[in-house]
Amino acid sequence: MTAYDELMTFQRQTEALAQVAGRLGWDQETMMPQGATPQRAEEHAAMAQVLHARRIDPRIGAWLELAEAPDPVAKANLRHVKRSFERTAKVPADLAAELAKTTSLAHRVWAQARGDEDVAAFLPMLQKVVDLRKQEAAAVAGDADPYDALLDDYEPGATGADLAAMFDALRPRLVALRAAILDKPAPVQLDQVFDEDGQLALSSKLALAFGYDIANGRIDKAVHPFSSGSGLDVRITTRTSPRDPFNCFYSTIHEVGHAAYEQGIDDAYLLTPLGRGVSMGVHESQSRIYENQLGRSRAFTGWLFGQMRDTFGDFGIPDEDAFYATVNRVSDGFIRTEADEVQYNLHVLLRFDLERALMSGDLAVNDLEAAWNDRFAADFGFAVDKPSNGVLQDVHWSEGLFGYFPTYTLGNVYAGCLHQALRAAVPDLDADLSQGDTSRATTWLRANLQQHGGLRSPTDTIKHAAGMDPSEAPILDYLEAKFGEIYDL
Amino acid sequence: MTAYDELMTFQRQTEALAQVAGRLGWDQETMMPQGATPQRAEEHAAMAQVLHARRIDPRIGAWLELAEAPDPVAKANLRHVKRSFERTAKVPADLAAELAKTTSLAHRVWAQARGDEDVAAFLPMLQKVVDLRKQEAAAVAGDADPYDALLDDYEPGATGADLAAMFDALRPRLVALRAAILDKPAPVQLDQVFDEDGQLALSSKLALAFGYDIANGRIDKAVHPFSSGSGLDVRITTRTSPRDPFNCFYSTIHEVGHAAYEQGIDDAYLLTPLGRGVSMGVHESQSRIYENQLGRSRAFTGWLFGQMRDTFGDFGIPDEDAFYATVNRVSDGFIRTEADEVQYNLHVLLRFDLERALMSGDLAVNDLEAAWNDRFAADFGFAVDKPSNGVLQDVHWSEGLFGYFPTYTLGNVYAGCLHQALRAAVPDLDADLSQGDTSRATTWLRANLQQHGGLRSPTDTIKHAAGMDPSEAPILDYLEAKFGEIYDL
Repeated sequence: MTAYDELMTFQRQTEALAQVAGRLGWDQETMMPQGATPQRAEEHAAMAQVLHARRIDPRIGAWLELAEAPDPVAKANLRHVKRSFERTAKVPADLAAELAKTTSLAHRVWAQARGDEDVAAFLPMLQKVVDLRKQEAAAVAGDADPYDALLDDYEPGATGADLAAMFDALRPRLVALRAAILDKPAPVQLDQVFDEDGQLALSSKLALAFGYDIANGRIDKAVHPFSSGSGLDVRITTRTSPRDPFNCFYSTIHEVGHAAYEQGIDDAYLLTPLGRGVSMGVHESQSRIYENQLGRSRAFTGWLFGQMRDTFGDFGIPDEDAFYATVNRVSDGFIRTEADEVQYNLHVLLRFDLERALMSGDLAVNDLEAAWNDRFAADFGFAVDKPSNGVLQDVHWSEGLFGYFPTYTLGNVYAGCLHQALRAAVPDLDADLSQGDTSRATTWLRANLQQHGGLRSPTDTIKHAAGMDPSEAPILDYLEAKFGEIYDL
Repeated sequence: MTAYDELMTFQRQTEALAQVAGRLGWDQETMMPQGATPQRAEEHAAMAQVLHARRIDPRIGAWLELAEAPDPVAKANLRHVKRSFERTAKVPADLAAELAKTTSLAHRVWAQARGDEDVAAFLPMLQKVVDLRKQEAAAVAGDADPYDALLDDYEPGATGADLAAMFDALRPRLVALRAAILDKPAPVQLDQVFDEDGQLALSSKLALAFGYDIANGRIDKAVHPFSSGSGLDVRITTRTSPRDPFNCFYSTIHEVGHAAYEQGIDDAYLLTPLGRGVSMGVHESQSRIYENQLGRSRAFTGWLFGQMRDTFGDFGIPDEDAFYATVNRVSDGFIRTEADEVQYNLHVLLRFDLERALMSGDLAVNDLEAAWNDRFAADFGFAVDKPSNGVLQDVHWSEGLFGYFPTYTLGNVYAGCLHQALRAAVPDLDADLSQGDTSRATTWLRANLQQHGGLRSPTDTIKHAAGMDPSEAPILDYLEAKFGEIYDL
């Protein structure tokens, strides 16, 4: 065997073990009996240690020295392995252990503080997490921007400065669009109970309509919907809400977007570094284009309206146009995860600016709540009423996930670019969508993006698929046109 | 840390990883999408390799040299670790790999051959498996009896010669009892469809009645019922059969017996070598005493009769006595897994004698089918009609599980001893059982056997609990008395 083959054999086992570890997480959220929690923590820790040991195995360094990459696939494989090997090796084992311990503890403290609406109870833990992540970033990046080192874990190659430039262009137009919409009368809301069996049945139908391959996946209920796994076993979850079936339907379509990416990757990349979505941002572009640009389009909601009537009977919305407006209703709210297409990115931009300032030292942990509340009032026009609706609402910072938030908006930006290219390639797509047929869209996405997995960098992945440099212009144009029409702006 | 503490820390991670690997098997039988099979095979292999590497880690040898065992728990822990370390190290890696590959292949060939009723198609693979297991046994046992080396994996300390003496005492009385029963008129059979929801609801009620802790477990459907896991996460499965609800109910009670053993082990032994059932035979004693001596008793079936009437209405059995006879109906059959209490062990004894002869070389693989058919006719009084009802019926040999079958009957023998002691300790137990209350039985079993996990050897575990040397006499006396009364012998 060549050094490359030996490395890839070793790597393949690591990928298989990573799938096992990931499925343990799936099990925990869907199947695990409650009393198993303490044992499960030890199981997770043992798997994490096995994976960590493999990722810094000194044989990888030796193989990398000798391995030859005669083709783009091999080059890409080596690039991924090298990146992971060097990244993992740079962080001292005791710092990694301290981070794991502290974030696990901080998560519990955060949940308690959020329940108690007590920011002060969380801040000392947050300070610790910030300090440790700064140390980690310094170990990885040396003198370079520590925020970029963290961002790179979720979006390889992205920099805080580039994102800031893009986001600063997004923000004013989103703020203006939001304000214009909220000056107009709001569409009617759903106002009845929708039975759970009907929601789940239609949710499954939607998953299949968007091409979810159930022979290589399954759908279960979970408190927070997620997708999980790569290759031949990609599972999704959903949830129901008695008065809000859109929560169920659009969660499902969102997770199907993530799953479609994983399921769409070339079989030849199975259990290799290329056999996974290439970044959080590109992943989110798939979940978002399925959920929003396709799933919340006039054409597709026309079909969904008929499906809901078939499933639930008359539910108080008179026709497809009214239904389209209801699906895309914009209203005031504190919570990011419940936000509509227009306001969602404003929530993310707020977090991005604050976490970047925390990491640079421009913002002190003790000033975080005030900074949050000021920024919220500036962008959303009303005041945060309590910490669980403000600085304590998201789990991410307690888990040390600095650099993760911006990938949500990057995903929306990417989705905007991809959608523009998709519509140019399939100009009569709406004729299909209005029949509930997404196949030409999903085929295009698979051929141009999904199948390539980790072959190219995130930016090159989007460039290759959309035929343009990633830019915020398409998503802004799309939002202004769509909501301009719905709200008669 | 002392050498003992270091060893136990290492071992604890190994036990946690073994739990993860086991849950992967549970997932495969209950949740895994069908298309995931090839990926799952790689995941299993990767976990097996991680576990194997840990089990022969040379540090274990160094720790064992230095470790001191000041108390019985530490002594028992070291005994288990030493046994596993030496056993694993004795088998060359290439032989272990060849065995894994061959049995995986043989399993597929067996399934195909069984479907085709084609014994000849399976024999070359079986020959390979037998040869490899003999090599493995020789590596482990040197010049000692190879069958004993294999048996020791499932029932530490047991020998083929001891079991043969016990089983030779069982066989004639079981053959005679069977013949006497089948001379008598058979009790009526169930003869209607029982709806699945009702079966599953009553099955869950039975699980709880036998003390299954659902906060640390769950019940799912599977093609072949099994229990899985140790410690805080012990899951069981069941199945339904439209016309045979006893299949569902007694499968469930059987698996609850296995699970109760795991769930009953002292919390202090969690994720240690003592935190698992000590042997297959002792495990089977728990499943069997729950299923048969308790679950199929006159007292408990009286309660179950009422439950079935409540669930399904009148199902054609007039009263408790008739129901008791129906539950314990003995009839001709080819299949071990469907056999009643009287005939089950005759199926096992047949396999034990044949597999021992295969391993010693007294029986050639090519003569196996004829030997099976002769023995079956001798003990059961009628001829095997086709291979799937004879030599091809069980999966075990294709998987190389020689030495496993006798633990089924050993479990029944142990259950007989434990039941005798339980009845002496709780003489009025039937008063509880007739109310569906098993708690004094399960409390006695937990206190005397289950809680101790792997603290003592299998034989000493039974001795400690039952207060007697294991012997076939109690199970024979019990069967003759019970079926003598039902069949008026």
